[in-house]
Amino acid sequence: MGRTYLTPEHHKKRVEKLSMILVEQNIESFLIINSKNIFYLTGFSFIPTERPIILILHKGDVNFFVPSLEIDHTQHQVPFVSQIFSYFEYPDERHPMHHLAAILKNEVKLTPNRVASEAPGAPGYWGYKGPSLEDVTGLKFKLLPDIIMDMRVIKEPEEIELMRESARWADRAHRYLQEYTEVGANEIDVTIRASTQGSHDMVNELGDEYHPTGFSIFPAIALYRGQIGPNSYFPHALSAGLVFKKGDTLVTGASSDVYGVQSELERTMFMGEPSSRQRELFKAMLAAQDAALEAAGPGVYCSDVDNAARQAFKDHDAIHLVRHHTGHALGMEGHERPFLDKGSEDVLEPGMIFSCEPGIYEKGLGGFRHSDTFVVTDDGIEVLTKYPRDIESLIIS
Amino acid sequence: MGRTYLTPEHHKKRVEKLSMILVEQNIESFLIINSKNIFYLTGFSFIPTERPIILILHKGDVNFFVPSLEIDHTQHQVPFVSQIFSYFEYPDERHPMHHLAAILKNEVKLTPNRVASEAPGAPGYWGYKGPSLEDVTGLKFKLLPDIIMDMRVIKEPEEIELMRESARWADRAHRYLQEYTEVGANEIDVTIRASTQGSHDMVNELGDEYHPTGFSIFPAIALYRGQIGPNSYFPHALSAGLVFKKGDTLVTGASSDVYGVQSELERTMFMGEPSSRQRELFKAMLAAQDAALEAAGPGVYCSDVDNAARQAFKDHDAIHLVRHHTGHALGMEGHERPFLDKGSEDVLEPGMIFSCEPGIYEKGLGGFRHSDTFVVTDDGIEVLTKYPRDIESLIIS
Repeated sequence: MGRTYLTPEHHKKRVEKLSMILVEQNIESFLIINSKNIFYLTGFSFIPTERPIILILHKGDVNFFVPSLEIDHTQHQVPFVSQIFSYFEYPDERHPMHHLAAILKNEVKLTPNRVASEAPGAPGYWGYKGPSLEDVTGLKFKLLPDIIMDMRVIKEPEEIELMRESARWADRAHRYLQEYTEVGANEIDVTIRASTQGSHDMVNELGDEYHPTGFSIFPAIALYRGQIGPNSYFPHALSAGLVFKKGDTLVTGASSDVYGVQSELERTMFMGEPSSRQRELFKAMLAAQDAALEAAGPGVYCSDVDNAARQAFKDHDAIHLVRHHTGHALGMEGHERPFLDKGSEDVLEPGMIFSCEPGIYEKGLGGFRHSDTFVVTDDGIEVLTKYPRDIESLIIS
Repeated sequence: MGRTYLTPEHHKKRVEKLSMILVEQNIESFLIINSKNIFYLTGFSFIPTERPIILILHKGDVNFFVPSLEIDHTQHQVPFVSQIFSYFEYPDERHPMHHLAAILKNEVKLTPNRVASEAPGAPGYWGYKGPSLEDVTGLKFKLLPDIIMDMRVIKEPEEIELMRESARWADRAHRYLQEYTEVGANEIDVTIRASTQGSHDMVNELGDEYHPTGFSIFPAIALYRGQIGPNSYFPHALSAGLVFKKGDTLVTGASSDVYGVQSELERTMFMGEPSSRQRELFKAMLAAQDAALEAAGPGVYCSDVDNAARQAFKDHDAIHLVRHHTGHALGMEGHERPFLDKGSEDVLEPGMIFSCEPGIYEKGLGGFRHSDTFVVTDDGIEVLTKYPRDIESLIIS
């Protein structure tokens, strides 16, 4: 078993790293508003609502501004918190942003021209309306929306271990998905059964090592999202309660949440012996995925990985069936920067994690796409999802 | 069985209503960017990613701007679509927003000073970066972020029927949750089992009447989110894999997704015979919920509903245990405007739907909160969630 969570010490190191970047930019106070970024830095997971929750990173100290209902929850989850400031409720008689302004002035004591924020104000979740930080404080905040997302691009060794563990449970859940898929079954039932069994295995086998973040209902998930038979032609179909029939082309999905890190695994499968056209398109897709994985490595342009897959599709006379690029980075979000895209100017670096999922789509027949998760290493790549990719392993008899 | 979906004709009426509001404001073209608002208007459900998807409402016509992978999916879901414009991919060699600018200029032919948008640019999902609409078009867009949210505040009769149906399945799933909860069980297992069984019932009993939107994995869900025993003290705890013990105070949650509309049901339950303090706090909570429901009705201030609950807590010497207001509107989002909050200046109107969930929290013992969904009618309110609220029904022996 690999690593399944990060320690408060690890989070503190991230805070220190960010604090150093801020010092270089002459920023003394930084307001962090994105809930995933707050989790990344502190391990504090919460339900984002209309009530503003803001991490105030001031001279390296972690302070929070939270509604009444999150005060003790914050204290409980962030052992290294310095101060927790609070307001009662949103909207309340006095808007939370005015409370915040008073706290920033009288308690935190911001220094003008040395303040920054991820966004102009609190996020507009769920009915929230409010004034900007500038409106309530009279101060100019330097906007740094990407500074933490940029830190998140290169995954630390510990994070790569979380992703490896996530891939392991995605594989497991997917095994159940394949096992439960049969003619006449409904995609919703199979999705729930496979995710239930995969989650059960994960929770029980990890035992005390499992530290749920609460971000996902299913710790491990394997699912259909409507990509069944002709409907699999839609690359981003959504679950439609479809029933499996003989001859269907299927595209699946699987993941698991290990301390907020989520791998991506997808497979093209067939209900019974595939037709010659199904075999042909499967072969083209597999060749494109092989070509992309072969092209990928440290120092390689993202665009070259996409172009390698595209060349394979051209060689197989299937480029006209392509509907999207080859992949995207991932970590705590389903998709992250950078992208394996012919238009990207980014370069693969050790520690980046990507999906590799070139796909083709033929109307009336369906979609053909595997997705695997790989990490860029010092001298190549490592594919973390291990599920069989060959056609014979993916025919449901 | 009530209504379980809306027809394209219904969506068209919403588009017509919005178009008339835009005409009044002298707006000829409106760009709609919020994915839930796009579903509300057209019934098109999709996975929001870094690839911009924009509804261009132009002179009453519904046009879309979508990535290659969504072209046929859009056509398939929106029978009344006029034109679908597309770009290949994000980021690609040419940024999607530059494609959009060319389309708005050459195909849609925008009239300067008669254009509006929900936001300055595409949403920053999942690694997206891009220029603003103004940057790429050179035009000033009037920002109307709230115009559709404002339409959504008053629910149509058909939408209220969807909510009634959602409440019915939330009740059902919750029944399983209560049945499966026992000493020694893990909250994750019980959550998954109850949601599985509730969803199974819903999908099978509704049959062809069930039209999934793909927004939720579980059609019906009943869950624990870590509010178990002393941990139920945290109003917004998150699932932590806790095990039920004798004496625990529990706070649950249940909902179901009926064509994107989601009710809210929560119950306070006890593992075995409650102590006198548990009974006392339960009684205070129930009195506050009764008071709020009694106060609510058309023409009543939202603040008066909150104040009614607060007065009941004062009468029961429990006001110091309150951590949040009494409720919020809901519909297609978990929380919507307006709020049952002492600071709100809004008034309840027929067709509004709210949660009623005054809560109190005692450290070491736990949380006490029921949540019910009610609709404001012409002459009062109707509570849509029917699950028993009395203590004797909620003791798990």
